[in-house]
Amino acid sequence: MINAGIIGSTGYAGSELARLLLNHPQVNVVSLCSKSYAGKMYKNVYPNMSVTDLICEADDMEALADKCDVIFLALPHGEASKRVTEDILKKCKIIDLGADFRLQDLDVYESWYCEHYSKDILKEAIYGLCEINRDKIKGRRIVGNPGCYTTCSILSLYPLVKEDIIDENTIIVDAKSGVSGAGRGLSLGNLYCEVNESVKAYKIASHRHTPEIEEQLSYACGRSVAISFTPHLIPMNRGILATCYASLKKDVDYDGLRAIYEKYYGKEYFIRILDKGVFPETRWVKNSNYFDVGFTVDKRTNRVVVIGAIDNLFKGAAGQAVQNMNILFGFDEKEGIGYIPPFPV
Amino acid sequence: MINAGIIGSTGYAGSELARLLLNHPQVNVVSLCSKSYAGKMYKNVYPNMSVTDLICEADDMEALADKCDVIFLALPHGEASKRVTEDILKKCKIIDLGADFRLQDLDVYESWYCEHYSKDILKEAIYGLCEINRDKIKGRRIVGNPGCYTTCSILSLYPLVKEDIIDENTIIVDAKSGVSGAGRGLSLGNLYCEVNESVKAYKIASHRHTPEIEEQLSYACGRSVAISFTPHLIPMNRGILATCYASLKKDVDYDGLRAIYEKYYGKEYFIRILDKGVFPETRWVKNSNYFDVGFTVDKRTNRVVVIGAIDNLFKGAAGQAVQNMNILFGFDEKEGIGYIPPFPV
Amino acid sequence: MINAGIIGSTGYAGSELARLLLNHPQVNVVSLCSKSYAGKMYKNVYPNMSVTDLICEADDMEALADKCDVIFLALPHGEASKRVTEDILKKCKIIDLGADFRLQDLDVYESWYCEHYSKDILKEAIYGLCEINRDKIKGRRIVGNPGCYTTCSILSLYPLVKEDIIDENTIIVDAKSGVSGAGRGLSLGNLYCEVNESVKAYKIASHRHTPEIEEQLSYACGRSVAISFTPHLIPMNRGILATCYASLKKDVDYDGLRAIYEKYYGKEYFIRILDKGVFPETRWVKNSNYFDVGFTVDKRTNRVVVIGAIDNLFKGAAGQAVQNMNILFGFDEKEGIGYIPPFPV
Amino acid sequence: MINAGIIGSTGYAGSELARLLLNHPQVNVVSLCSKSYAGKMYKNVYPNMSVTDLICEADDMEALADKCDVIFLALPHGEASKRVTEDILKKCKIIDLGADFRLQDLDVYESWYCEHYSKDILKEAIYGLCEINRDKIKGRRIVGNPGCYTTCSILSLYPLVKEDIIDENTIIVDAKSGVSGAGRGLSLGNLYCEVNESVKAYKIASHRHTPEIEEQLSYACGRSVAISFTPHLIPMNRGILATCYASLKKDVDYDGLRAIYEKYYGKEYFIRILDKGVFPETRWVKNSNYFDVGFTVDKRTNRVVVIGAIDNLFKGAAGQAVQNMNILFGFDEKEGIGYIPPFPV
Repeated sequence: MINAGIIGSTGYAGSELARLLLNHPQVNVVSLCSKSYAGKMYKNVYPNMSVTDLICEADDMEALADKCDVIFLALPHGEASKRVTEDILKKCKIIDLGADFRLQDLDVYESWYCEHYSKDILKEAIYGLCEINRDKIKGRRIVGNPGCYTTCSILSLYPLVKEDIIDENTIIVDAKSGVSGAGRGLSLGNLYCEVNESVKAYKIASHRHTPEIEEQLSYACGRSVAISFTPHLIPMNRGILATCYASLKKDVDYDGLRAIYEKYYGKEYFIRILDKGVFPETRWVKNSNYFDVGFTVDKRTNRVVVIGAIDNLFKGAAGQAVQNMNILFGFDEKEGIGYIPPFPV
Repeated sequence: MINAGIIGSTGYAGSELARLLLNHPQVNVVSLCSKSYAGKMYKNVYPNMSVTDLICEADDMEALADKCDVIFLALPHGEASKRVTEDILKKCKIIDLGADFRLQDLDVYESWYCEHYSKDILKEAIYGLCEINRDKIKGRRIVGNPGCYTTCSILSLYPLVKEDIIDENTIIVDAKSGVSGAGRGLSLGNLYCEVNESVKAYKIASHRHTPEIEEQLSYACGRSVAISFTPHLIPMNRGILATCYASLKKDVDYDGLRAIYEKYYGKEYFIRILDKGVFPETRWVKNSNYFDVGFTVDKRTNRVVVIGAIDNLFKGAAGQAVQNMNILFGFDEKEGIGYIPPFPV
Repeated sequence: MINAGIIGSTGYAGSELARLLLNHPQVNVVSLCSKSYAGKMYKNVYPNMSVTDLICEADDMEALADKCDVIFLALPHGEASKRVTEDILKKCKIIDLGADFRLQDLDVYESWYCEHYSKDILKEAIYGLCEINRDKIKGRRIVGNPGCYTTCSILSLYPLVKEDIIDENTIIVDAKSGVSGAGRGLSLGNLYCEVNESVKAYKIASHRHTPEIEEQLSYACGRSVAISFTPHLIPMNRGILATCYASLKKDVDYDGLRAIYEKYYGKEYFIRILDKGVFPETRWVKNSNYFDVGFTVDKRTNRVVVIGAIDNLFKGAAGQAVQNMNILFGFDEKEGIGYIPPFPV
Repeated sequence: MINAGIIGSTGYAGSELARLLLNHPQVNVVSLCSKSYAGKMYKNVYPNMSVTDLICEADDMEALADKCDVIFLALPHGEASKRVTEDILKKCKIIDLGADFRLQDLDVYESWYCEHYSKDILKEAIYGLCEINRDKIKGRRIVGNPGCYTTCSILSLYPLVKEDIIDENTIIVDAKSGVSGAGRGLSLGNLYCEVNESVKAYKIASHRHTPEIEEQLSYACGRSVAISFTPHLIPMNRGILATCYASLKKDVDYDGLRAIYEKYYGKEYFIRILDKGVFPETRWVKNSNYFDVGFTVDKRTNRVVVIGAIDNLFKGAAGQAVQNMNILFGFDEKEGIGYIPPFPV
């Protein structure tokens, strides 16, 4: 049993994490921090969590580090880089669900986000995309947990980029997300009547997950990658579907593509390579840590179309954070996140 | 470990049951029967269930009884009463999710449903509403698993009727259900565009769950009860909310009502009596075995308003079936169904 | 052609009204007032209204009265009673979509709402439920436009109460509304992920539409009426369904009930009495001024069940306001609101 | 006043057409044909259409042609080409909402659909994309009304292709549609619980609207065009959003693009070119004949991203069919389809 705390536990990602940790057989949740709800019973904020009697606390990260083996951060960008210190890292491990420890390229971070306050610590952080970086995650003190769109996009394209099958300058990712990705903050655009019965793109050619996808794909091919990335808002609670397009550089058919995906993902518990002619639907991954992927070759245009799906709050945030924790502490990687998801969702 | 089989495993209730049993640490699922999908991989019918390699089988109940400790039936009414025999009951226990073994009053059954083919076996069946009949369930060979609307309605009203606080002839239950309650069959009325953005009542004054509620409430008060019951279809996947009205026979305030609910439900893990002024919302019970209940006294009209909520496929069907199995086999009653449900749902 | 202005034009009811008036062949919209959006192009607040180049204005009711034949108010309660003056009424007609001029009983108003600031003017106001009060509306200077729940509930029950067929002390109205009824203000409870996939009751035994229904039904039967009224929030944009229960005082069958409804509503364009065995669904009235009603006698309990449906923003607010305007100014009552609504909705 | 009939009037597109024609001031609807519902009151199939007493008829196209000035066909592909004859065209005009008279390239039609039975008539058919082909539509006897995805995709890209600004071989259209696009037929995939809370792509690299888009874009640039087109199913009733990507051949900025769109669409009533930084959302076009378009230049990738939105049943089917009728008969092009759409939708 390890002790865990969450800072930022009352947003959607934070509460999903609280739920998974409260259900986890190896974890004792010692603290659920929340600036907005400090002093309130956690179960009164989230009545589904009636099993816990924890009270939301204002966070004192130093004190928390003394009693925790791991602290999860679910904070707005710029916050984590201010708070994580060498002192804290000496006491406990950090898994940051925000953006501050994902991008290794500091200039890129600062041009898309804001000033970074922990440049030295950034260097030792590892990008916690478990299926790609598993071995590098082991033993680290700090993990930058990947974003939701990025998890889905990178996992969809990684094998093709790694094997140099596609022209990386032709990559287009058209992604669709449920509304929980926008968080629990009050904004007109997230009201029921504004979202329901509509679909829209947003942050066209300017979404911050773009450089995160690009950096990881660049590592994979060893060259700089620039992609087009367009997120869309879908009237549903959870789920991301990424429809990815790229021009083929080599003559490859479905079986060839499949062999490539099998090579990288064939033994991954949480990755399901779908049968030929079958493509992901977010309903089948909702409330799970699965990443589903399907693909086809479009001979007419010499493009490959790859479609990936995840639950944005689970594999795209809290579930992967737990997966990272499992790796860091040597637990079975499926522990606490490996159950069969419900349907209808 | 016990062996379990499901007949009718590819409807919504049957598949929810398959999921719960596949996740259950004490259960080995030996057979998933389905007339419609016989020969097909179960995980191709329900891709969320990718962990199982079971193939849908045409059912042979005799053969199944030989290898199972318990068989679950999820069949159209009239089917179970034709199939359950003394022979089968000698070999294994039966938990029937259909209506055939719920009503003890044969005339009532036959006037609302159809001819009953197992009259003798009916006599030994127990109505599997766990929180009310727990002690009577133990040791039985056959359990009639309650309906979804009935579970929610009876649990909402039982303490008041039992304590003779309300005039049982004034009971009105106005219930709202998600669409999964209508099953997975093809019908115009269940198409997305016909259900979405609309609400309707159906089977007004004629829904078959009416006599089931009435029979159980009659047992509670020792008098014959006739209620008004109106089900409504709500554009959501899962959940039932029952809004119950009755005239008070005694002068009682909120605290008095609360004491009554605490008396019957205070120690029940799966029943949450909400705080004063708080009322159930289906989102907090979705994907769980919880029954949430809230109530108030309306002094102006001398009525009590009780509101109950469940997940229709979980506590209203498959979850309660597993709860019954846990009782029958002496497992912890929460085993396999006690985890914290997700939110947003 | 008449000139019309709206104060409070950027809420959901106000914008629906703006839309109907902009479409109305007899109306020239001279001013769209909005405190929140003053100075902004109306079509930038509501891009569906691209045909108008009006700019939202801070309201100056005196000035507006000089250029308008009618002013519509869509304001929080307590605001209208502060603003409407004898001076203004000398210049133009007022149709108030809020609660301030609906209840004639001042004590009831002040106990459910707040202090009333126009007690004299209240006396001359007429409750604008067109099908009931048409003749009394003609010639008035000020109309209290009915609430959404109240329109649906009163129209459902009026003929039965008027004909003294039901025991008015047994009336229960269980109502279900789409989310637009909650308005466009920012609140956690109205976020997409909080509303979607859930149903709840709210303001149980305490909703302010209760006394409004009671007052009108009391006029109908000549006795004081107290009802149980429970509103519910449904995951859809628009629509109200009211399921009404009452004990029968006289021996009446379906045909008897139908004759009563035909007597009062048989010639009403906007009221559709559904065929025997057919009940309202909100999808068939959405985006229209229709009120649909169906009913049945439940012999087992000697109760009548009446179900009514409207679009809460249309017949329940803006559409009825236009209907009242049409009556006040002698236009065809269907003008601007009589077109066939779309489906799927 | 002209007389109009619809064959296939009880599907979603057919009923939307019936609604628009019944509302149209210049049209007398003489016949609503429906194989499935022959003999049934139309308003019992679609209760929103309570104003009409027409009864669904089995179609007799010859007889219908004798009494109609225009016949609309909303039939499965292959049906229209069997039924339209020279004889019929001598008597009345035909607007076909199906695919049979859209593609001029017979080989393409037959390879994507089936045998074509009216090859001669096909030659005189005009592709009824009003804003592009207005002048060619006038005087025709037969119009092939464009598909929903195609209307949205072609209108999004036409100005850029026509002006030779983009490399037509890099075009990717990622489209999202509401469920009504799938029609009213019974299929498991269209059940509420299967669609709700999920998003998926379908017919990847194989949807029949692909060659229709390609043919029209080829006309625009004078070269053969092959695109990637991926349709997605979104949990909403109506609406299509097309997100289009292409590489720029010339150095052009936002203002340059805008000038091009203004050149082609600046005077079009039903096309709204959105302001810089504003992009379409389907809610603002739902229940209207509008096509909204927004665009941006992505300097990083040298691509243009164009986003278009329509209501699939309105501008994408029935509304455009009425627009074509208005052109054919010399009515105001907005007649019957120019009103302001509602919101929330």
